[in-house]
Order: sequence, then C-alpha cells, then structure tokens
Amino acid sequence: MPKVVDHEERRRELAEAVWRVILRDGLEGVSVRAVAVEAGWSTGALRHYLGTKEELLASAARLLEERVVARMQRRTGGLAPREAVRAALCEVLPLDEERRVEGAIWFAFTDRSLVEPRISEEYQVVFSGMRELCNLITRDMAEMGQLAPGLDPAVEAARLHAVVDGLAVHGLLGRMDEAGMLAVLDAHLAEILQNSEAPG
Amino acid sequence: MPKVVDHEERRRELAEAVWRVILRDGLEGVSVRAVAVEAGWSTGALRHYLGTKEELLASAARLLEERVVARMQRRTGGLAPREAVRAALCEVLPLDEERRVEGAIWFAFTDRSLVEPRISEEYQVVFSGMRELCNLITRDMAEMGQLAPGLDPAVEAARLHAVVDGLAVHGLLGRMDEAGMLAVLDAHLAEILQNSEAPG
Repeated sequence: MPKVVDHEERRRELAEAVWRVILRDGLEGVSVRAVAVEAGWSTGALRHYLGTKEELLASAARLLEERVVARMQRRTGGLAPREAVRAALCEVLPLDEERRVEGAIWFAFTDRSLVEPRISEEYQVVFSGMRELCNLITRDMAEMGQLAPGLDPAVEAARLHAVVDGLAVHGLLGRMDEAGMLAVLDAHLAEILQNSEAPG
Repeated sequence: MPKVVDHEERRRELAEAVWRVILRDGLEGVSVRAVAVEAGWSTGALRHYLGTKEELLASAARLLEERVVARMQRRTGGLAPREAVRAALCEVLPLDEERRVEGAIWFAFTDRSLVEPRISEEYQVVFSGMRELCNLITRDMAEMGQLAPGLDPAVEAARLHAVVDGLAVHGLLGRMDEAGMLAVLDAHLAEILQNSEAPG
C-alpha cells in the first residue's frame, strides 16, 4: 500500500517541521502558517494533514514518543532484563545530541502544560508513556523476583520516573554531565533491583 | 538602623512584584517598566533599587531562596536529624499553595535557563542552593553513620536532588498529589538512610 506509506511519511515530515519551530520559537510559535513556511508547504496542503495548532502539537508529541519507543526496542533487543531496563531508561536521558533535542521538545511540552491546560492533552502521551514504562519495569521486575524486597512496585515506578525526569532536567540544564547522570541511574538501579552489580 | 531595614523592605516589595509579573507573563515579561507598573512605583524610583532586567530577575531568585531557607530553618528547629531532613525537603515540594507558587517561579527560571544562557546566572543561586543542601544532607548523614552502607555521599546528593526536582515537576503538573509525593520521598529516605522507619 504505497499510498499509506506516503501519507505517514508526510506526517513525519510535518511533525519534524513542528519540532524545528518549537526548538526555535517555543510551543507558542507553532501555527499552521509557521509550520507551512518551515516545511515549505502551502497552508492549504498542510491543512489537509494537520488543520489546527492542537493537531500540530499532537503530531510533535507523537513523533517524540515514536522515536524514543523505536530506539528503546532496537537497543534492548536480546538483552537480559536488568540490562534492558538500563538501556531503555538511557534513551530518555540527554546523553547525546539526538536525545538532547528530544529532551528540549519534552521540556517545552512540560513547561507549557504548567500554564496552559489545553497543552496537557498533547503532553499526556509523553508523560503517561514514561509513567507506563516505569510501571512496567517495576511490575515485571517484581514478578521476576528482581525487585529489592520490601519495595512497593507502584511507589517505585513513581520514584524511578522522578529520578529519570530530574536527571533529564539537570542534564539539559548542563548541570550534570553524561557520566554523572549514568552514575546516579546506576546507583538507583543497583538499589531497587535485587542481586545487582554495577554494570560496566 | 531604621534606614537599612526600610531599604530591605523595599527590595522585598519589589521582588514580590517581579514574582507577580513572572507568574502572569513569564520571565520574558519582566522589565523595569512592567515591574514599576506592577509595584505602583515610578520607573525612576524603581531604578534606584533595581536598574536592569538582570537585577530584577536576580532579586526574584534571591527572594525564592530566602523564603525557602527561612521556612526550612523555622520548621526543622528542634527536630532529630532524620526528621529535619524530611522537613527540609518538604519545603521544596509543591505541597500547598505557597509552595506551588514558589515552584512555578522555580520552574520559570529552569525553563528559561535552558534557552537563555544569561538567565543561568540568576538561576544558579536556586540550583546550587538546592544541590548544596543535598550535599550537606548526605555528607552529614554519612558522618553520623546514618547513610545506608555502601552509598557514595556525592552520588546520593545528586540522586536526592533528582528525586526531589522530578517530584516537584510531576506535582506542579498535577500528575502527582501530595500523598503520592510524600510516599515517594519517604520511600527514598527509608532506603538511603540507615535504621530508618517510615515516619508518621
């Protein structure tokens, strides 16, 4: 079905243009006009795919989720559970330029959703996706007997999410380097996971 | 020295006006003119105290630090070390309206310092103050033999800071309620501190 592929290709191209507008002008800068100019499309053609600011923002949030999830799947394949957990979480820390750009997009949504309730709907996919991943991790590790004894999987999911988001903010601010972020992540995993050694 | 007291009173009054402008219009909205209008001062009189946007932002950051530190001192006095640590950290979580307002100011600085390096200087006092507090906590607890064995005080300070800032963001976003934030904070303290029971 080449038509469908083409359609999805176009949506991704547009979502990438939305990202460039967000990185340059913030979420406030996103409009059908601004994205059309950025993508080199007519506003009429753009409206055929994404007709409102809300749809544009939703496409940007979806692109963020898609990219991170695809990379997580690629980089955790074949790993033992503990290493897969670490590899997955590394995909949301600003450890290289690609992830710093994603982090800046994430932070733009986080920031705006504090002041603009409508943004929250678009943001929800980003926040909830990460919370679900943390829930999955602590529940699976508990079921496999690899969560440290006495820990509550739900509380640990919220704590893991807080650690990772806190590290991401400090890393994006340039207050923590890559080694520092990884040292904290490893200390956290060493503590909540059973019989774990510090990974190489 | 009534003159000095008066002078400090005025600076606080102006810093509070800067906060109101930030909460309404963001950090971008802060200018000598906007703050003068907000405070009901002439721009000339305002310039006598705070002559530039940088000075206005620095006064807002200082007010944030002063308020939090003063409350921490008030609320930790007479407590045992472990309870004092918990009480101090609670002062930077958005657990009531006062702290939610402070959190919004903190977040505004955090957000802008991602995109505007000059803001980072004003923000530094806020970030570094919190990191210093976390360093103090883990170092003191280690010296008193109350840090759990095998933990590195420097890594634990960074991890504690990440947990608290992550919780603050999730709380400000309305994604975690007060009980949820406290459950995570208590789980974290129970884990890093020696011989600790869950506090009431």
